[in-house]
Amino acid sequence: MRYTEYLLPTLKETPADAEVVSHRLMLRAGLIRKVAAGIYNYLPLGLRSLRKVEQIVREEMNRAGAHELLMPMVVPAELWQESGRWQQYGRELLRFKDRKEADFCLGPTHEEVITDIVRHEVRSYRQLPLNLYQIQTKFRDEIRPRFGLMRGREFIMKDAYSFDLDDAGADAAYERMYQAYRRIFQRCGLNFRAVEADTGNIGGSSSHEFMVLAESGEDAIVSCDSCEYAANVEKAELRAPATDEPTPTEGLKKVLTPARKSVEEVAAFLNTSPQKLVKTLIVQTDKGETLAVLLRGDRELNDIKLCRLLDCAWVEMAGEEVVLKATGAPSGFAGPVGLKLRILADREVQGLADFITGANEKDAHFTGVNLGRDFAVEAFADLRKAVAGDACPRCEGRLQIWRGIEVGHVFKLGTKYSEALNAVVLDDQGRERVLVMGCYGIGIGRTLASAIEQNHDADGIIWPLPIAPFEVLVVMLNPNDAEVKAAAEQLYAELLGEGVEVLLDDRDERPGAKFKDADLLGIPLRVTVGARGLKDGQVELKERAGGAVAMPAVVKAAEDIAARVRSARVHG
Amino acid sequence: MRYTEYLLPTLKETPADAEVVSHRLMLRAGLIRKVAAGIYNYLPLGLRSLRKVEQIVREEMNRAGAHELLMPMVVPAELWQESGRWQQYGRELLRFKDRKEADFCLGPTHEEVITDIVRHEVRSYRQLPLNLYQIQTKFRDEIRPRFGLMRGREFIMKDAYSFDLDDAGADAAYERMYQAYRRIFQRCGLNFRAVEADTGNIGGSSSHEFMVLAESGEDAIVSCDSCEYAANVEKAELRAPATDEPTPTEGLKKVLTPARKSVEEVAAFLNTSPQKLVKTLIVQTDKGETLAVLLRGDRELNDIKLCRLLDCAWVEMAGEEVVLKATGAPSGFAGPVGLKLRILADREVQGLADFITGANEKDAHFTGVNLGRDFAVEAFADLRKAVAGDACPRCEGRLQIWRGIEVGHVFKLGTKYSEALNAVVLDDQGRERVLVMGCYGIGIGRTLASAIEQNHDADGIIWPLPIAPFEVLVVMLNPNDAEVKAAAEQLYAELLGEGVEVLLDDRDERPGAKFKDADLLGIPLRVTVGARGLKDGQVELKERAGGAVAMPAVVKAAEDIAARVRSARVHG
Repeated sequence: MRYTEYLLPTLKETPADAEVVSHRLMLRAGLIRKVAAGIYNYLPLGLRSLRKVEQIVREEMNRAGAHELLMPMVVPAELWQESGRWQQYGRELLRFKDRKEADFCLGPTHEEVITDIVRHEVRSYRQLPLNLYQIQTKFRDEIRPRFGLMRGREFIMKDAYSFDLDDAGADAAYERMYQAYRRIFQRCGLNFRAVEADTGNIGGSSSHEFMVLAESGEDAIVSCDSCEYAANVEKAELRAPATDEPTPTEGLKKVLTPARKSVEEVAAFLNTSPQKLVKTLIVQTDKGETLAVLLRGDRELNDIKLCRLLDCAWVEMAGEEVVLKATGAPSGFAGPVGLKLRILADREVQGLADFITGANEKDAHFTGVNLGRDFAVEAFADLRKAVAGDACPRCEGRLQIWRGIEVGHVFKLGTKYSEALNAVVLDDQGRERVLVMGCYGIGIGRTLASAIEQNHDADGIIWPLPIAPFEVLVVMLNPNDAEVKAAAEQLYAELLGEGVEVLLDDRDERPGAKFKDADLLGIPLRVTVGARGLKDGQVELKERAGGAVAMPAVVKAAEDIAARVRSARVHG
Repeated sequence: MRYTEYLLPTLKETPADAEVVSHRLMLRAGLIRKVAAGIYNYLPLGLRSLRKVEQIVREEMNRAGAHELLMPMVVPAELWQESGRWQQYGRELLRFKDRKEADFCLGPTHEEVITDIVRHEVRSYRQLPLNLYQIQTKFRDEIRPRFGLMRGREFIMKDAYSFDLDDAGADAAYERMYQAYRRIFQRCGLNFRAVEADTGNIGGSSSHEFMVLAESGEDAIVSCDSCEYAANVEKAELRAPATDEPTPTEGLKKVLTPARKSVEEVAAFLNTSPQKLVKTLIVQTDKGETLAVLLRGDRELNDIKLCRLLDCAWVEMAGEEVVLKATGAPSGFAGPVGLKLRILADREVQGLADFITGANEKDAHFTGVNLGRDFAVEAFADLRKAVAGDACPRCEGRLQIWRGIEVGHVFKLGTKYSEALNAVVLDDQGRERVLVMGCYGIGIGRTLASAIEQNHDADGIIWPLPIAPFEVLVVMLNPNDAEVKAAAEQLYAELLGEGVEVLLDDRDERPGAKFKDADLLGIPLRVTVGARGLKDGQVELKERAGGAVAMPAVVKAAEDIAARVRSARVHG
């Protein structure tokens, strides 16, 4: 491709509203442009990389025995009503009416549509196992779309669905997908980790997320420093703490803590550490209950664990008004002593004595608070978020914390959708059996963005070669120098002839501007054709990653470079 | 691909609601399944052919110098408001609000979005010419979706947009697209014709449609039997009739025509031919006007020509109530004599004398009606539809009529969108110039359906090889015969090794059922591996088109077949 004929608008300035590096670099390198909140155009360069990720995904899905099909983006309400998600799914499901006032939604995921296909077309166990996938545009009306392609509203996803006669078959399908996902992200050149995860909106019995490790990741994940255990922090189980019976030594005492509301403020004011406090969170559920949850002062509540305990869809911190009504005090001073709410506590609280809590009174806390003696807890459970150094739940190791970006998610769905939609087959005895399902998603655009989060420097993107928009950039230093122009054109033609994907920077720009753009675009190999090198019959070959420089002879540069590119391509 | 592992549900019965052959065969051959009115799943086999059409389109667009990008399906109202189409476009534009009550639509076409990209990213004439395209899912909320993929609501389209500095550049871009379209439909193996067409909803100064010729086509097209002239019948100009001054010989006379309302009924009752009648159509426009249009009795009104004359968006036949009010009689008896409406007439009426019209009175007509003497016409114009045998507007030839399916449409847009959105560049003198645009669409799914309309027989589809889902079908006649099974498996493996796309029918079914499905699926080459042939060391090779049979030796069958496939593939 010739730069002068291409639409490749790079930006010198950092766009104001781009918060994460992949978003900034995708805008600056001319890969995407915003159309509306969470809705983007893929410009030609961005689309090239997107298609490469798609193709890697497609090849590995096909290799794993899955079959590609294509379902519609506009889905009739009936199917979602049958599964019950028309009512349950929140406002991320964009619902609308067509001109005949019939209800439709933009599909955010396609369990219902695929199950509808399979219940009509698959009747016998002999048609199983079956794994069907699509690579398709989806829409989720996120309340706060952000970070460019990382959390968009319209996005491209690969979603696969497996159908089996029994759990053993479904487990095998899950394992095949798990291995296919490992190959996909390896082939994309990404540093990732598969972790145990919560099943959320999709449902099912268990799931793994594939996380690309990056500082900017929205998700925290834990992994053990000595065994294979890894999980989303939301999901991470914690080993039950050693049960030291706590021994009260102090009496309950009210102390004034004027205007000190946060754990840190109270601890500092009372000259102690946050670990000596027990915080009392007043929480509301989607079912309308208000309750109190106790955690050690330095811990954070894990919403997901609490929801699982309460069997509810979501919890949120109560607002000022509810707190005042429930505790008699403004927020910041809640405590369990005398509280007229159901009280749950993290297991860790069970081992504490003589701790500090709010006194349910403005500007006051209690010290010397003790379980049993001063208040009662209905249940203790694992309710806190894991932190670095926590004991591994599986071995004697310690947990580490990483930041990650979820790029893939595999679920064992069980019979949630096949039961709701009555997707059954006859087994070899002629008995009806409800299909056992799995579902498997990859965010294609998000994979691209996460590759940039993981592979960049201050100057721009550093593409892994398998998903780079072009493999080689030929910089023609001065297009007005006939010799330079001829040599660069010839090299360009030779590389194309070798089957290399090459961008020729034939613009009439200063060398500095061309090199700056080259670093920004991040094409793995840069070949500079200039008058100085040509005097010695050489061109300059520079690797974007690492910056290693070589000076191959111009006469055999194309051959050398093509050989390097071929060896760097991952054929899987 | 092994049939037993694939999702390929063929139907023996003809689906009840499928009116055209492509719809019936796409359902029966397991290519598509309906999700809702005008919304379909592409099953694996259908998607394979769809992707082949896409790939041919992509290759030819790239060869023509166009660059692929990808715009969103969900488009903010603002852009459509800027062009004015938010108001003008009918209810086919599906409008909805997101969770924040912002207005969006599902893009039925992307002139606004692409013009928005270009006005931001293209500033100089040096960035021109530019042609950008996408292959993308679109939605039009058709009032009457029908014929399967032929007139769906959600559909896949290739839409390209060219941007040039001046009309000469735009004309060259149009010509490049016109030639690319010819190559695309040639490579797809289709019999098509490019015809002059109306610009409709999209606008612009001129356009061509690419029509696949098929009896079932929704469009009628005309072509000259001696020159290159061809046009959609909506657009087809007619040569002005020779101006014989008509000579009245009869007096105006009212005759009773009890319950005779149609032209045919009245002509038969009065023992004359429809050509002796002039019919009076009472018509209403979108601007609220009611007027009368006169045509010779055997002619049909061309709505598009009337709209162009009246500069309105649509016209419709007036309802019973309006006719009664305007003429004083029920419909079927309207006539120009004494009519208090604006009267327009087709030019042909100008040459008629002593004709028959309605009398604006129930059960009565006039005979001996004459222009000028009995009533006045405001204007004569070309308002009728062309019919076979009409004179060519360009030469001395005669027009023929064909049925066709519109699969592509190219438009010279001029500055309609670039002016509305202020898409300007600086020319080499530093002056601002409004970009001159073209747009170019291909219905990908409709191309597939039209290929079937044109290539089928009573038994099923007859795919042109370049867009067939598989190139070769290997039928393993009896999978329980070890020798047959081994030979078929080996042939299958050898063909895959040769790079041939092959489907292996390894089902345990009767030969008759397998041959029936083979004919239905329409894969170009069928190889049957059976015990009888193997005795002589042969397999049977049958062409789906034409039915020619050969008996190659099994040992060199793969090589022979691969050679045939390679020569049949169109490399463009």
